[in-house]
Amino acid sequence: MFGEILYQVRSRKPHIHCITNYVTANDCANILLASGGSPIMADCPEESAEITALCDGLLLNTGTLNPEKLSAMRKSGRIANELHHPVVLDPVGAGASRFRTESIRLLLREIRFDVIRGNLTEIKALFCHETHSHGVDAVSSDSIAEENLSEMTNLIKAIASEQNTVIAVTGQIDIVADKNQAYCIRNGCSMMKKVTGSGCQLSALTTAFITANPEKILEATASAVCAMGVCGEIALEHLAPYEGNAGFRNRIIDAVYHLDSETFDKKANYQIF
Amino acid sequence: MFGEILYQVRSRKPHIHCITNYVTANDCANILLASGGSPIMADCPEESAEITALCDGLLLNTGTLNPEKLSAMRKSGRIANELHHPVVLDPVGAGASRFRTESIRLLLREIRFDVIRGNLTEIKALFCHETHSHGVDAVSSDSIAEENLSEMTNLIKAIASEQNTVIAVTGQIDIVADKNQAYCIRNGCSMMKKVTGSGCQLSALTTAFITANPEKILEATASAVCAMGVCGEIALEHLAPYEGNAGFRNRIIDAVYHLDSETFDKKANYQIF
Amino acid sequence: MFGEILYQVRSRKPHIHCITNYVTANDCANILLASGGSPIMADCPEESAEITALCDGLLLNTGTLNPEKLSAMRKSGRIANELHHPVVLDPVGAGASRFRTESIRLLLREIRFDVIRGNLTEIKALFCHETHSHGVDAVSSDSIAEENLSEMTNLIKAIASEQNTVIAVTGQIDIVADKNQAYCIRNGCSMMKKVTGSGCQLSALTTAFITANPEKILEATASAVCAMGVCGEIALEHLAPYEGNAGFRNRIIDAVYHLDSETFDKKANYQIF
Repeated sequence: MFGEILYQVRSRKPHIHCITNYVTANDCANILLASGGSPIMADCPEESAEITALCDGLLLNTGTLNPEKLSAMRKSGRIANELHHPVVLDPVGAGASRFRTESIRLLLREIRFDVIRGNLTEIKALFCHETHSHGVDAVSSDSIAEENLSEMTNLIKAIASEQNTVIAVTGQIDIVADKNQAYCIRNGCSMMKKVTGSGCQLSALTTAFITANPEKILEATASAVCAMGVCGEIALEHLAPYEGNAGFRNRIIDAVYHLDSETFDKKANYQIF
Repeated sequence: MFGEILYQVRSRKPHIHCITNYVTANDCANILLASGGSPIMADCPEESAEITALCDGLLLNTGTLNPEKLSAMRKSGRIANELHHPVVLDPVGAGASRFRTESIRLLLREIRFDVIRGNLTEIKALFCHETHSHGVDAVSSDSIAEENLSEMTNLIKAIASEQNTVIAVTGQIDIVADKNQAYCIRNGCSMMKKVTGSGCQLSALTTAFITANPEKILEATASAVCAMGVCGEIALEHLAPYEGNAGFRNRIIDAVYHLDSETFDKKANYQIF
Repeated sequence: MFGEILYQVRSRKPHIHCITNYVTANDCANILLASGGSPIMADCPEESAEITALCDGLLLNTGTLNPEKLSAMRKSGRIANELHHPVVLDPVGAGASRFRTESIRLLLREIRFDVIRGNLTEIKALFCHETHSHGVDAVSSDSIAEENLSEMTNLIKAIASEQNTVIAVTGQIDIVADKNQAYCIRNGCSMMKKVTGSGCQLSALTTAFITANPEKILEATASAVCAMGVCGEIALEHLAPYEGNAGFRNRIIDAVYHLDSETFDKKANYQIF
């Protein structure tokens, strides 16, 4: 099932416009290419809407945000909505500063997002009226684990319902939900937290997956999250002696490059609630 | 012959000022270091002219362009021309937006470029009065192949003549031409399209090659294009099991690092028309 | 001794706010993660002070500087000083342009830095009233070597005393000094100069090391410089056939990821004067 979604990405080769941060842009571009998609990065307001119109899907990632980039995001988001292009929001650093949080809230008011993908800290900062954040990583006491899985699943479903979108929250266990259904995904490994921008890369991948499968956004999002986890596991298996987080970073992208639908379906580990 | 040109890069160690995009800047810097050159990235108009004056050659790459970067490019281009430093233009995304296309046209009016290196879509968008583009990759129906090679060679020569510069168009077959002569280069492999910024890296390499060989710009450009292709082939040979486009990206730069003149001359596969 | 300092980084996991250049930001983030620290990149004046306040230490790296980034640095530096967070300056490109040099001088006037880490060209441009620079790499005739080691050590100590800070100058031999004491470090290998941003990465590492060991800034800085050199040596040992500077870049970060205190203490090669 997830394998079929991957197959569509490989064959439809969606062009994805990414307005994203400079820290992880290169990895996002390479993981999009690995998936079969094609990345286009452009983030100045003078051209962003035109670039969006040329592409098939749009990713807005708020890392290293600034007022110019925000302005480009607003223009691109508007045109993507008009053209019915799938749009993903990765609210990097939500809650870490007033500017970041308010800018993201502005995007949420003006643009309809098909998927919002973040860590639990970011999602709670935006939708649960919490006030603290410790940068871009999820506060560990706020993580999704077996003991709070049912509670968290209900929370994410409630947010998805309120926002009328798909919410993907990644952590030890990942939850992808719309108002009706939630996927709980148990792929991945802890070393992925040691790669900068593994979340950014997942958001880029998600944009390609939903753009190539626009008729099933929830399932395509769960498939992207699951693919990232599966590729993390494969990367770990293939890690050579002395390789650390830099080698691992390359191996995740390489695993996406080689992932076939059959392996994907075999390794996918999720439940639907 | 091409080996001798590489040898000059290794021994003259040109300092290259790159005004380039943030997506591939790191790879451009590392491939310059691999070639024997030395990269300096600086893109604010407050200092770009001074940085250019300190260096030996200049690269203007229009990926993730914005008005500030454009202003820095104009200042740097002017001073490079005054100082007779070689200047390369990589018109990334030409045709993809009005702002991008018009900015590049402005650069073309104000600055004399020794080499313009792009894909066919970009070159046609600038010089053939075509209006469509699908981002930064060449439209496949517009690619250079055996069946249209002679026609394309004449087209590139004609543009080179009109623009009074060297034009390098990369694709399945690469063409590097001035008004009199064209190199058709058959090195490289299709996997290079799966590495973000392989074109950007080639443009950086080209700047180092022509800066170290200013008395033979056409041949040095053809040599850089050929070196990139040869290194793509070597990278593919050395690709280990499970390595994909991320590992391949590293192996291309590593191949440039190790390339010696003898191997280069042996693997170079080109014709002159 | 150095091993204990590394141990503190691994266990205290300092959050480091980096205002840095886009060329090497990804590598800086990954080397921070490899060390046990946690990177947060944010460089717009609208939020930089708040991000600094959330973190434990601050790095200001002046690569690809522009007026907006400078403004963010000034705000972040001020709040870091108020909160007594350790602050590191990497004056990339000092001396290469008036804008760069004057901006760095402004930072030096307004902000108290715990450590200033650069190459000899940059340090001399800032503190020895020299006027020439050839970009970001140290002029080779100005390098630290056995024959001028005693003279250079005294120079660095004098600058450290005048500036009331710790100065770390990296080259063939590295010198880390405050007004009273100097560490001369003989780890590392020449291939590190072939990796773009190895200096930037070291500055990021230094920020994590001093932030986790605020009671011994000099020793922690020397430890970071030594760790980078040791990891360069380990990376070189593990370099596989055909790997060049791109593979080497990954292996340095991977070596930081795996470095244990015992190996570190065994390989550390330094003298104290």
